[in-house]
Amino acid sequence: MNHINKIEHLGIAVKDIDKANALYEQLLGVAPYKQEAVESEAVITSFFKVGESKIELLASTDEDGPIGKFISKKGEGIHHIAFDVDDIEKELERLEKEGFQIINKVPKRGADNKLVAFLHPKSTNGVLIELCQDIN
Amino acid sequence: MNHINKIEHLGIAVKDIDKANALYEQLLGVAPYKQEAVESEAVITSFFKVGESKIELLASTDEDGPIGKFISKKGEGIHHIAFDVDDIEKELERLEKEGFQIINKVPKRGADNKLVAFLHPKSTNGVLIELCQDIN
Repeated sequence: MNHINKIEHLGIAVKDIDKANALYEQLLGVAPYKQEAVESEAVITSFFKVGESKIELLASTDEDGPIGKFISKKGEGIHHIAFDVDDIEKELERLEKEGFQIINKVPKRGADNKLVAFLHPKSTNGVLIELCQDIN
Repeated sequence: MNHINKIEHLGIAVKDIDKANALYEQLLGVAPYKQEAVESEAVITSFFKVGESKIELLASTDEDGPIGKFISKKGEGIHHIAFDVDDIEKELERLEKEGFQIINKVPKRGADNKLVAFLHPKSTNGVLIELCQDIN
């Protein structure tokens, strides 16, 4: 079994989802295939297919939500990398043993029909890493 | 023809290439397949395969080089996304017409046997985007 199958998506924090959708459609030459609100995270998300991966645009619906705070602090830009795994619980257990700081010890339901969990950027050279597994 | 074929790699700026190599090897479950110095950019790079894409670690050999400056200003973290294209000159021409700010109007030779050119993050929601084409 591979630990990590592929880059599932790259999350990009944007201020205005409509403007960013138009811009990434021009850049990538494809339209977003889905837009989805994730109320628990106070975001609207939008997805583009690029090869086997996706670009996920994230706009905040609340300045105090995680993306709202990220943009206030750092501006728009890449927010996280998500890696696709077959068994998220097993990978979290493996990574915790290896000394990575796990933010969500119990995976939660994310956008795009996934179970997701984040690793803390302090243990990964400043990169916010998401693991995700398809919900069958 | 697709405009963008896939995410070719994600570039991550790190302070210490040896420590970061060990950490990403643990995370990804694979060893880096190549390490390469790019003297013109004052970096040592290291590459990991993840599905059809790569993770490129970038450590600076000069505080005043682009990665050295990035880390001084923003700390370690994701530096750029690179998209694979078939014809970099045609894509640069297309994107310039669509209003994107092109940093390298003439593609230059990058790591991993590629022709590369960057788009300015001001025109792409704060994301430094690289286009790259294999040199045959």
